[in-house]
Amino acid sequence: MFIKNCWYAAGMSNEVKNEPLARTIINEPVVLYRKGNGDIAALEDRCCHRGLPLAHGQVLDGLLQCGYHGLTFDHTGQCVRIPGQDKIPQGARVKSYPVLEQDALIWIWMGDPALADPSQILHYPWHNDPDWAYDGKYTAINANYQLLYDNLLDLTHVGYVHRNTIGGEPEAHSNAEMKTTRSDDGVHIIRWLRNSMPPPMYASAFEFHGKVDRWIEIEFSVGAVRIYSGAKDVDQGAYEGNREGGLGLRTLHAVTPSTEDTTFYFWTIARNFKLTQPEVGEKLCQQVEATFNEDKVILESQYKRLQQQPGRPLIDIAADAGAIQARRIIANRIAMEASALNSNTANIA
Amino acid sequence: MFIKNCWYAAGMSNEVKNEPLARTIINEPVVLYRKGNGDIAALEDRCCHRGLPLAHGQVLDGLLQCGYHGLTFDHTGQCVRIPGQDKIPQGARVKSYPVLEQDALIWIWMGDPALADPSQILHYPWHNDPDWAYDGKYTAINANYQLLYDNLLDLTHVGYVHRNTIGGEPEAHSNAEMKTTRSDDGVHIIRWLRNSMPPPMYASAFEFHGKVDRWIEIEFSVGAVRIYSGAKDVDQGAYEGNREGGLGLRTLHAVTPSTEDTTFYFWTIARNFKLTQPEVGEKLCQQVEATFNEDKVILESQYKRLQQQPGRPLIDIAADAGAIQARRIIANRIAMEASALNSNTANIA
Amino acid sequence: MFIKNCWYAAGMSNEVKNEPLARTIINEPVVLYRKGNGDIAALEDRCCHRGLPLAHGQVLDGLLQCGYHGLTFDHTGQCVRIPGQDKIPQGARVKSYPVLEQDALIWIWMGDPALADPSQILHYPWHNDPDWAYDGKYTAINANYQLLYDNLLDLTHVGYVHRNTIGGEPEAHSNAEMKTTRSDDGVHIIRWLRNSMPPPMYASAFEFHGKVDRWIEIEFSVGAVRIYSGAKDVDQGAYEGNREGGLGLRTLHAVTPSTEDTTFYFWTIARNFKLTQPEVGEKLCQQVEATFNEDKVILESQYKRLQQQPGRPLIDIAADAGAIQARRIIANRIAMEASALNSNTANIA
Repeated sequence: MFIKNCWYAAGMSNEVKNEPLARTIINEPVVLYRKGNGDIAALEDRCCHRGLPLAHGQVLDGLLQCGYHGLTFDHTGQCVRIPGQDKIPQGARVKSYPVLEQDALIWIWMGDPALADPSQILHYPWHNDPDWAYDGKYTAINANYQLLYDNLLDLTHVGYVHRNTIGGEPEAHSNAEMKTTRSDDGVHIIRWLRNSMPPPMYASAFEFHGKVDRWIEIEFSVGAVRIYSGAKDVDQGAYEGNREGGLGLRTLHAVTPSTEDTTFYFWTIARNFKLTQPEVGEKLCQQVEATFNEDKVILESQYKRLQQQPGRPLIDIAADAGAIQARRIIANRIAMEASALNSNTANIA
Repeated sequence: MFIKNCWYAAGMSNEVKNEPLARTIINEPVVLYRKGNGDIAALEDRCCHRGLPLAHGQVLDGLLQCGYHGLTFDHTGQCVRIPGQDKIPQGARVKSYPVLEQDALIWIWMGDPALADPSQILHYPWHNDPDWAYDGKYTAINANYQLLYDNLLDLTHVGYVHRNTIGGEPEAHSNAEMKTTRSDDGVHIIRWLRNSMPPPMYASAFEFHGKVDRWIEIEFSVGAVRIYSGAKDVDQGAYEGNREGGLGLRTLHAVTPSTEDTTFYFWTIARNFKLTQPEVGEKLCQQVEATFNEDKVILESQYKRLQQQPGRPLIDIAADAGAIQARRIIANRIAMEASALNSNTANIA
Repeated sequence: MFIKNCWYAAGMSNEVKNEPLARTIINEPVVLYRKGNGDIAALEDRCCHRGLPLAHGQVLDGLLQCGYHGLTFDHTGQCVRIPGQDKIPQGARVKSYPVLEQDALIWIWMGDPALADPSQILHYPWHNDPDWAYDGKYTAINANYQLLYDNLLDLTHVGYVHRNTIGGEPEAHSNAEMKTTRSDDGVHIIRWLRNSMPPPMYASAFEFHGKVDRWIEIEFSVGAVRIYSGAKDVDQGAYEGNREGGLGLRTLHAVTPSTEDTTFYFWTIARNFKLTQPEVGEKLCQQVEATFNEDKVILESQYKRLQQQPGRPLIDIAADAGAIQARRIIANRIAMEASALNSNTANIA
């Protein structure tokens, strides 16, 4: 069960160059490639002739040619050429998807194309901001996407899952001041660790003068979780709203369901310090990757266990507040789409 | 769904030596071995005692001994010895299959043994002809056998799937003169590329004097596709019927369904030139293997995609004529077998 | 289908140290760890909060802490701590299992805890006997547990499956004098190979003066097969009951179903000679492991074949007597448990 009418990250802009790229998104096989003008196109990854994934083919003059018998398609999915014959049979076309690039990410709309509104694409200006530098990758998670949202929206796991890497003091995270706010289509969580020791990663990357006030701010909207974290010398006004002069990290966590059992986890980490030192970004990126691989182990093991007895109840705890809100938002959106579909069907009948 | 009453290639003669060989054919596990006189025998590969595949056993005095508790079977499938007891229980036997060697291939009959007529085995004299030399192997295809027939009967794929190996000019293949003829139980396709450049593989193996007339002749019958290809200097009578003095290659493509999802692709390549240079045959064999591995990638990816939505319609193009005929022949044979089975059952009732 | 009300070996004592250990037993995921006093505890391996296997966690002060969000459980399965909150919600607990260590093995009771009687645990004093030394390991078998019992209770397979290792003379084994006795809850089989050559392994480990009287004694009870084998110089009274002064080996084969398709095969080999030479034990252990890997190949291949046509009949032979008795005992116990469950349900209704 997926939300269909939303923009999902299909990849990062730099992933699609001259070769077509295959990505299965909410169970539909998609092939991404660049048209003649460099814009992204997205087609169903299945030739209408003999079913071969079009990603085996090549891009020629901005058109996508099937790698089996050379049928060629434009970005609307229309077959425009069949080797050895002049007539293009009716119905020789594949599905195309609304797709756009914004902030160095590729966004795709898998639902009703009539509802695809580009203004709804997540704005993420830190990929274009001269005061920030970023790096990113993606991690393939063999688990349902909901588990990844749960993971991101309850950071008390950091002290346990990441106890050998970034975890540090589990108690500090669990006992941090926390406020959860629900908006129309999202959840906002803020945690403050005031008057605490900077974690080793912070201390090695930035000059603090002793203890710090540390914040972790989480924003969920369908398709992505944004986490803004940082620290500033203690009692220098950060808690009251002035974070200037502190260390800041902005991580984007785009969550794209591939199938019920697999999820694309596209992530970037942006920093507001040492912008001109690419090795700092690379090291951060490596640390993040290692950390997320720890999550991957947990999520995949958890998913396997849950799948053994799918409907069996679980116990909620206080720290689940944000994750539960997010699950409700997703469930509502799925239910709304189903009921819209039913009433459309009723109208037609 | 398979044709049962036909001779399938079960392997090449040189594959069965002293050890028993396991092969699953149209979903039935078979073990092949050589009797005392060197002839091939084929039994069900499942001991009637505890179900162990007999292929774990050994051949002793032309009998097949189970590798678990030593029960021993003759080539009719009768258990003839049980260690530690004198009496052979009634029903201690396994199924046996009609099997024959001809032209260096092993042919097995999986259907009603009463209908097994050795004269219907495909004749392939080029494995025994002093004017030809051959080499061969097999490629395991993880896809339904029908996709392999489709592949072999529409060679316009050569320019795309094999564009980095033997493909050359896709247009030349697609625009070649083609004639498709249907016989009672087969399809014959001939393609002529007249006045064309010899492809690199031809040019390196044979001396031409410029452009050539090039032919590709495809014969489908249930169980195998034979492809006779070659070239001769342009306008030297090849098109009119005299191919003497030209380069000739004969490739046999025996297609044996193993399961619904897996297929044995036994193939040989025979040449009428440089007969005494085995390194020429070895090189041809390597080239063919590399080429067929390109097909394997395509067929397996295509099959996976098709399996995601089994009944979904596809679009046919002109080049599919031969493949469509072959599919009809196979479908008819399967339907005839089913109806014969039904009327037999009715007679019994 | 498994017997639930019995003690199964869950592992060897030395397998559980500081880290929790995951074991799936009769389809239930279990985590084993040591309490503060060193005793073994066994809990369901699934946190009641988000389902993560508890085996990812750590043991702190004899309590088991989940590796995801730090929920902590005592050996009864009660959650005793939730980071970040004081109240433990009702129902925050996981299942616990009766578990005991005896004779260097860990025994677990998967059925009704009220019926768990420690006095029913198999006694195996040779793990504690100063006149014997032992070594052991476990082999994971990807087949149903019944096939492993069959294997152990019909040793005529030794001459075939192990013909390249310990097999020796298949005829000698098949024609050995054999007596099968059924007790209330077990089967006892004894085989005598009188006046026979000592097998190479015996001859290299012990000094005989020519031919020997050789015995193999097999005792089946639910959960384990014990095999006592040995040899003594011919006509020195062994057959009449005095085995003193002979070579003796005692192998324990604990058979624990993990799932329908996978089985833990815990085994040890104890010897009554060269007790102070650990290298003798290590070599025996290696030989046994190599031998059991031969069984593993056979059992897994056999199981795959049988699974293709689950209900299809097989033929029994004389040597199956013991295995058939064991299968009856298991079937009876399973049927009794089902009928007890039904009558309990009826009483409640």
